[in-house]
Amino acid sequence: MSDTPKAVVLLSGGLDSATVLACARRDGFSCHTLAFRYGQRHAVELEWAEEISREQGAVEHRTATIDLAAFGGSSLVGDGEVPKGRDDDAIGHGVPSTYVPARNTVFLSFGLAWAEVLGAEAIYIGVNAVDYSGYPDCRPEFIESFERTARLATKAGTEGRALRIVAPLQNLSKSQIIELGMSLSVDYGLTHSCYDPHPDGAPCLECDSCHLRLAGFRQAGMPDPRLLRFGLSDPHP
Amino acid sequence: MSDTPKAVVLLSGGLDSATVLACARRDGFSCHTLAFRYGQRHAVELEWAEEISREQGAVEHRTATIDLAAFGGSSLVGDGEVPKGRDDDAIGHGVPSTYVPARNTVFLSFGLAWAEVLGAEAIYIGVNAVDYSGYPDCRPEFIESFERTARLATKAGTEGRALRIVAPLQNLSKSQIIELGMSLSVDYGLTHSCYDPHPDGAPCLECDSCHLRLAGFRQAGMPDPRLLRFGLSDPHP
Repeated sequence: MSDTPKAVVLLSGGLDSATVLACARRDGFSCHTLAFRYGQRHAVELEWAEEISREQGAVEHRTATIDLAAFGGSSLVGDGEVPKGRDDDAIGHGVPSTYVPARNTVFLSFGLAWAEVLGAEAIYIGVNAVDYSGYPDCRPEFIESFERTARLATKAGTEGRALRIVAPLQNLSKSQIIELGMSLSVDYGLTHSCYDPHPDGAPCLECDSCHLRLAGFRQAGMPDPRLLRFGLSDPHP
Repeated sequence: MSDTPKAVVLLSGGLDSATVLACARRDGFSCHTLAFRYGQRHAVELEWAEEISREQGAVEHRTATIDLAAFGGSSLVGDGEVPKGRDDDAIGHGVPSTYVPARNTVFLSFGLAWAEVLGAEAIYIGVNAVDYSGYPDCRPEFIESFERTARLATKAGTEGRALRIVAPLQNLSKSQIIELGMSLSVDYGLTHSCYDPHPDGAPCLECDSCHLRLAGFRQAGMPDPRLLRFGLSDPHP
């Protein structure tokens, strides 16, 4: 049996979490990746999550189904329109309508359940600064509070092993995340970010997530390999 | 539209959570009850949860499915044996094998998601003192920490509305819970507590949960209406 410490890595199939997986590997963990099927419109990301997990040599990948959609309340899982054509300044101000209620709390809880069964020492999650003002559950104080709750919640915690919630992207801009990932050989051609993709999985290039990603690669001064994969190019280079 | 404040009440179909629902009604809340299908062997409790919710006049009842079973790790969801024939002293010492990983964290997270959508002011949960030493996520410090996390996690929390996690049974013994429930007219004939029921739903009278319940009614000095329903009587009166 290997003595390599284990980590659960929450993997959405997007750019951020693919970078987080690379960070967990860099930090010496044997990685168990976890994706969620929660009624999202962009469920195509789940196939990419599996592909990214395999490509980065994770030990195993699981997709957990959770029926948050039953509670409604968000355009990501409900019938509302995904906001389109907002400029970069509008993104990140106020809580966007794509907010899913208590999403990171639910995701981290599932990560915690698996971490406990595995005896994992850490849960990695890809929250980052760009999301702070929009999503309350992406803030550092939320992550710290969840870590404390997780330690109190579990058998491992009561036995003195201190589970860590690691958010390595927390203080990075999108372009810094991309630079970090490139230095760790992340294949961004496999990562899906769009909230409202075309039937073939190609990004819409108009939703908030596409805007942030386009701006990130622009600022990092490199082409997005995802666009090349679909024969697309940055509409505002 | 009614101005009655809303509460989400986690309802397992057992004695404790039926009492908690009565407390939430006593406290003036309009109640939305939430049960979980998580691969438990004693899934019969879910039918009783619905019945209890209706009988106590909750506004609506939902059953959320969560696949914790995919992670394994407990005899309540896995293949292990439910412990039988333990005496009252053995119960509550050490973490029992019926422990489900991170269960209350996951359940409260789902409660939080629904609470946010509903604009509910409280989540009621039936943790109590008897479980403290066995289940780490039943301790008051866990509940307090989750409350803090929940306030940081949500849009409502960032807007200054302070969601409360209410655990009205926290300091009560089983017999005190029963006395409280009787004073609030809870019909305990509808509540199911057994971890390993017979096919017709009758309690096994041997598992830890049956033992605690039998001792509770004995101490409260009244017969368990659930036993009467199945033509049973206390084997150790």
